[in-house]
Amino acid sequence: MIGPRGGARTITVTRRRGADATRARDALAVEEPLEIRIAWKGAGGSSRVEPLAVTMRTPGHDFDLVAGFLFAEGVIEQFGHLAEMTYCRGGAEQEYNVVEARLAPGRAPDLDRLKRNFYTTSSCGVCGKTSLDAVAARGCRVLPAGFRVDAGLLPELPERLRTAQAVFARTGGLHAAGLFGADGEPKGVREDVGRHNAVDKTLGRALLDGALPASESVLVVSGRASFELVQKAVVAGVPMLVAVGAPSTLAVDLASRFGQTLVGFARNGGFNIYCGEERVG
Amino acid sequence: MIGPRGGARTITVTRRRGADATRARDALAVEEPLEIRIAWKGAGGSSRVEPLAVTMRTPGHDFDLVAGFLFAEGVIEQFGHLAEMTYCRGGAEQEYNVVEARLAPGRAPDLDRLKRNFYTTSSCGVCGKTSLDAVAARGCRVLPAGFRVDAGLLPELPERLRTAQAVFARTGGLHAAGLFGADGEPKGVREDVGRHNAVDKTLGRALLDGALPASESVLVVSGRASFELVQKAVVAGVPMLVAVGAPSTLAVDLASRFGQTLVGFARNGGFNIYCGEERVG
Repeated sequence: MIGPRGGARTITVTRRRGADATRARDALAVEEPLEIRIAWKGAGGSSRVEPLAVTMRTPGHDFDLVAGFLFAEGVIEQFGHLAEMTYCRGGAEQEYNVVEARLAPGRAPDLDRLKRNFYTTSSCGVCGKTSLDAVAARGCRVLPAGFRVDAGLLPELPERLRTAQAVFARTGGLHAAGLFGADGEPKGVREDVGRHNAVDKTLGRALLDGALPASESVLVVSGRASFELVQKAVVAGVPMLVAVGAPSTLAVDLASRFGQTLVGFARNGGFNIYCGEERVG
Repeated sequence: MIGPRGGARTITVTRRRGADATRARDALAVEEPLEIRIAWKGAGGSSRVEPLAVTMRTPGHDFDLVAGFLFAEGVIEQFGHLAEMTYCRGGAEQEYNVVEARLAPGRAPDLDRLKRNFYTTSSCGVCGKTSLDAVAARGCRVLPAGFRVDAGLLPELPERLRTAQAVFARTGGLHAAGLFGADGEPKGVREDVGRHNAVDKTLGRALLDGALPASESVLVVSGRASFELVQKAVVAGVPMLVAVGAPSTLAVDLASRFGQTLVGFARNGGFNIYCGEERVG
């Protein structure tokens, strides 16, 4: 699932088990920084470029990652807002670790908002509710009903996700995220050392394919369900999130508020439904 | 291990196992935003306050978290650089979600550097080596030799970490980090929904206790070892990092460069040594 540069590197390690020590070859998940820059036409037609973020990621599917990141952060709201993405064309040392995303004509980033992140301006106002309100303020609506998934399928999805992970099998060190249809077929699976990156890559790919909102899909994640992962899924219009691990309080609060079905501990033939039970058949 | 507000909240969920569905009470790990502000005396003696970051964390040990965060980010380099920490004293709704850290007289944050994060200014220069160089540029030196841990103890440390986790036992949803002596006794264990926060809380507590550099300690983490976790440990002078999961390539590169012992997959009686084998007895 990882691109041309490969998601794993092999090194020699010492394996210890009791008194036994053996030298062995071990594959590691690659982690490298990716700098994301946005380019646009400023006032008077001048070209502007600003660095937006550096994320530690597993190389491969970088354009999916950048598209997903920009979408999750609200810099772009649809495929058409993106004119092109290129690796920075530099000198002799092209490291493929800087991606420049050029916005469509007429689009400009709200740099103040991005730099502010979700800092509050009031005195003591930050709290869980503030975070939920911030998602609503971005224009997210309650997710439509209608989509349903058979209960018997849900505990199988993490295993199907795992099967689609090419690099994890070798390294044991990668998170994964994937969109699945109600029939349990994968629509797109991505891996990364970072949980958030795996989700950004998956949803970014869907965005580039014109498949958002993903209103007929389940997003499956290999780890826990945090506020930020639920937020990314809500923004992408995903009606159901299935996590192998536990959700947090704020993840459940956010999913409830936007009518998303949140499933956790999906393993060993069982699962817990935290909200949105009506979509589980 | 979690403070007065509690790290868990109980809700009612539906448990499905095959065709069986039961309503049950389930404890969730609490996730709430924490805004970190820094306050200092500016030019001419004027008081300044700037929001620095918002992190999603499990409430409890917030001052440990803030101290550890500021230390990891290089805003403070020692306990004495911090004058006081207080929850924002606001109006009627004190949510305990904003902590203001006041710097000692004469200290001021390098706001440009903090806002820049580790953005590059060169054209295509960001890469793994850039990230390693950035740690060296902060004044980190190769960790001294001498500290040793018995090989038989290492695979037991994750279980000892787990035993010290009060909230995980109820929720299954918290990461943990802890400092242990060569005798295997815990010196401080902290939990959080976020891996980075658990490490910041642990090292922040050590900082506040005057116990840094932690040159006679092992840092044990419940998840994987990424670049950022190794970086935090290197900055705190920790000579050995033990992870339950896999390390990434850049984590191994960074540990190697600073002479840190990096152990992964510490479980089921065995472990892998990725570098710094001389400290394993």
